[in-house]
Amino acid sequence: MAVTLDRAAVERVVREVLGEFRKGQDAAPPDGAASPLKVNVSARHAHLCPRDFEALFGKGARPTPLRPLYQEGHFAAAESLTIIGPKSRLITGLRILGPLREYSQVELAYTDVVLLGIEKVPVRMSGDIEGTPGVWLMGPAGMLELKRGVIRAAIHAHMSDRDAARFGVADKDIMELVVEGDAPVIFGRVHVRVDPSYKLEVHLDTDEANACHLASASRVSLRPAKGRLNVISDIINKGVRA
Amino acid sequence: MAVTLDRAAVERVVREVLGEFRKGQDAAPPDGAASPLKVNVSARHAHLCPRDFEALFGKGARPTPLRPLYQEGHFAAAESLTIIGPKSRLITGLRILGPLREYSQVELAYTDVVLLGIEKVPVRMSGDIEGTPGVWLMGPAGMLELKRGVIRAAIHAHMSDRDAARFGVADKDIMELVVEGDAPVIFGRVHVRVDPSYKLEVHLDTDEANACHLASASRVSLRPAKGRLNVISDIINKGVRA
Repeated sequence: MAVTLDRAAVERVVREVLGEFRKGQDAAPPDGAASPLKVNVSARHAHLCPRDFEALFGKGARPTPLRPLYQEGHFAAAESLTIIGPKSRLITGLRILGPLREYSQVELAYTDVVLLGIEKVPVRMSGDIEGTPGVWLMGPAGMLELKRGVIRAAIHAHMSDRDAARFGVADKDIMELVVEGDAPVIFGRVHVRVDPSYKLEVHLDTDEANACHLASASRVSLRPAKGRLNVISDIINKGVRA
Repeated sequence: MAVTLDRAAVERVVREVLGEFRKGQDAAPPDGAASPLKVNVSARHAHLCPRDFEALFGKGARPTPLRPLYQEGHFAAAESLTIIGPKSRLITGLRILGPLREYSQVELAYTDVVLLGIEKVPVRMSGDIEGTPGVWLMGPAGMLELKRGVIRAAIHAHMSDRDAARFGVADKDIMELVVEGDAPVIFGRVHVRVDPSYKLEVHLDTDEANACHLASASRVSLRPAKGRLNVISDIINKGVRA
């Protein structure tokens, strides 16, 4: 007896099969392979220095850990801010990530930048805030003009020395992130950040994750920008970071 | 005498040089080359059938051309809608594109989909709306429940038979869009749509344009998905479509 399936049924079957496929990849990596790759999506957020945190949340205030992030010691804080753009447009609920840092920095997707009307927000690595635009921040204890620190975070991969060696890359090298699925994309500039404490993790912002439809990706892999056939790590899971 | 330049000065110089470079590309293409490539960004928008347009804007109403789009005969209408998601979240000012069609369809970026809370919006070519989610639309003359028609538009390239022949592709083939700049991206699935009346144009949605920072791209090129070195058309200008 012939069986006909409508498109929705076919899509359901494909999703189920892909789900099994992903679970299968959740096992420990084969000997010699890099660690399993985690790709997390960073929604817009702020890092603050102690002085700025106190200006916004009160003297002596410190961030309250709400939930841990994938990298050891990092967390999403219970506290959030309102960010106010130059045309009085604002975004509420801007999450603060902890721990506090030596400088304050706001990481926005380009969609947020357009909504707020901030001009000339560059793509930068975290901490590289020289010459970046400022913005007003509003917290429960006060307002603060950040003189600089608004960036769009460059795509980056955290990894240990061991994973870097297996990929054949070093700190500050460039890799490519290959996303396969219904909206296939190759991100051509993934900055490598190596530290013994790092777990293998790529951070995309919401624009990047939405452009490649990460939530429905069938496979995501990281490869050195030179050496295009050297695909040695596949995604096993994905999540939203903040 | 040594001259030192800060980063902002260097960036300014680079922008100026790139501006000249782009202007240079604005000239007619060399003989045998494909037409100049235009990459336009489609913000969220709706296409409506005459019956739905009348339900929203009044009996006998027809869309008022506000400004022409790049493809002959197409236009952004003066009329816009409010789209209401399943959790009563809404987006106002959803632009209507003309002329009217035989079916109604709403094209959203994935960021819009998340904001509205609509589940399972697939990546589809325009017109392929079987099994897609519906949504409520609100206009000045009434409310309307669209039973289906919400899609995220697949990236596509309009081109004439002549341009298709020069790229070595045919209608429904897949090409790649290569975006170089400060956020380099290769979009792996660009659907080719050939018609004698089409001007060479790629449509990205706002998520895709933001992910690759299209506004600051130094070069954008289109190439067949098979035949990676066959880069035969470069961007000359970019714009926001709707």
